[in-house]
Amino acid sequence: MPEHVIPPRSGRAFELAAGQVLSVIDPMGGQVADLLAISLADTREMISSGRTLDYAETIYLTTGHSLYSNRSNVMLDIIEDTVGRHDFLLTPCSEATFRLCYEDEPPHQGCHGNLHHALEPWGIDEDAIPVAFNCFMNVPVDGETGRFKVLPPLSKAGDYIRFRARMNLVIGLTACSAPASNGGSFKPIHYRIEEA
Amino acid sequence: MPEHVIPPRSGRAFELAAGQVLSVIDPMGGQVADLLAISLADTREMISSGRTLDYAETIYLTTGHSLYSNRSNVMLDIIEDTVGRHDFLLTPCSEATFRLCYEDEPPHQGCHGNLHHALEPWGIDEDAIPVAFNCFMNVPVDGETGRFKVLPPLSKAGDYIRFRARMNLVIGLTACSAPASNGGSFKPIHYRIEEA
Repeated sequence: MPEHVIPPRSGRAFELAAGQVLSVIDPMGGQVADLLAISLADTREMISSGRTLDYAETIYLTTGHSLYSNRSNVMLDIIEDTVGRHDFLLTPCSEATFRLCYEDEPPHQGCHGNLHHALEPWGIDEDAIPVAFNCFMNVPVDGETGRFKVLPPLSKAGDYIRFRARMNLVIGLTACSAPASNGGSFKPIHYRIEEA
Repeated sequence: MPEHVIPPRSGRAFELAAGQVLSVIDPMGGQVADLLAISLADTREMISSGRTLDYAETIYLTTGHSLYSNRSNVMLDIIEDTVGRHDFLLTPCSEATFRLCYEDEPPHQGCHGNLHHALEPWGIDEDAIPVAFNCFMNVPVDGETGRFKVLPPLSKAGDYIRFRARMNLVIGLTACSAPASNGGSFKPIHYRIEEA
C-alpha cells in the first residue's frame, strides 16, 4: 500500500470503494486535512455535518462514530483514531476567508479552492461544497458563551485517523492552507488506501 | 403589516427584498422555527453555517451577528433578538430523523420535507438544503466532552428575532415538527415583513 503525499496548501480527490479503508496521516504533526465525501452513484449526495452531529449527539467525533450524508445514509465509519480531536463545524478556508481573516496578499484559494479544483473531474459545483470533516483540526468551544478558538492540532508526527467506506465514494482531501488551523506551519498530509 | 401564521409542523417560503426586515415570532413560547435563506439572483448561493460560524467565532449568534452565504456574502443581519439562544449546528429534522430518533409511525416529513415542498416553486433541489438557522432552538454544548442536548427553547410567548435582508432572498421558514426541539409541544410560528 503506497503512502500518497498531499503537498502543503494543496488538495487531491480520488475514488474510495465500499469496504476500502482510508488512512489520513499527519506525517510531521500539527497539520489539518479537510475531508469531503461524495456518493459516486449520485454526486448530489454528500457528507453532512448537520445530519452527522444530530445523530452522534456530540460535536467531537472519533472511533465508533459514522459520517452521514445529506440523505441520512452512512458514508464512512471512523474505525481508528490516534488523536481524538477533529472539527466538523467550519467550512474549508477559501479566498474570502483569507481576505476577511488573514493578511495574505494575494489571498490563497485555500482548501475550498483546492477541493473545488480537485473535484472538478467529477462535476462537483463549487457552491455545493459543504462543511468538511476537518481531520486533526482543534476547535475547542466554550460551552457557556459559545465562543470557540482555532488552536494548533493535538496530532503528533505519525498520528492518523482511519475510515471504512460504506458506499462507493469520491473523496476530497487537503493539506490545510490556513495559518490558524496548523499553528502557522504549512505541512503535507499523507494518505493510504487499503483493500477491503 | 399583517402577521402571517405558520401552522404547527408546517413550513412556508416567501421572497424578502434587500432592506426589508423579517420578524420571526414565537407566539406561544417554546417553539422552534428553522430558517433558510437563498439568493434570489442565483439559488446556488445559500446560507452557510460553516462560513457564518467561522466569521462569528461563536456557535451562538444574536443581535449584531450576520448570516453569511456559501460565497461569503452577508445575507441577513440579526438586528434584534429577545431570546439570545438559537442553534446553527443541526439540519432540519427529516423523515430519516424521525425514523432514527423518534417512534413516529408513519414518520413525519419534518422541517426538511416542509422546507423542500415550500421551496419547490423556486427550483431548490432537496439535496441542496443545508444546515438551517434554527431560531429559538436550544442546544447547549458541553465544552469538555463535546456532547450536546436538545432542550426546550428559552423563548416565552411573544419573543422574537428580527433580521434585515442584505440581498434579495427566498426565505424558507417552519414551525418545527420534532418533539425534542419544542419540548414535545407542536405550536405555530408567526412572521412579519416590514418595508425598508
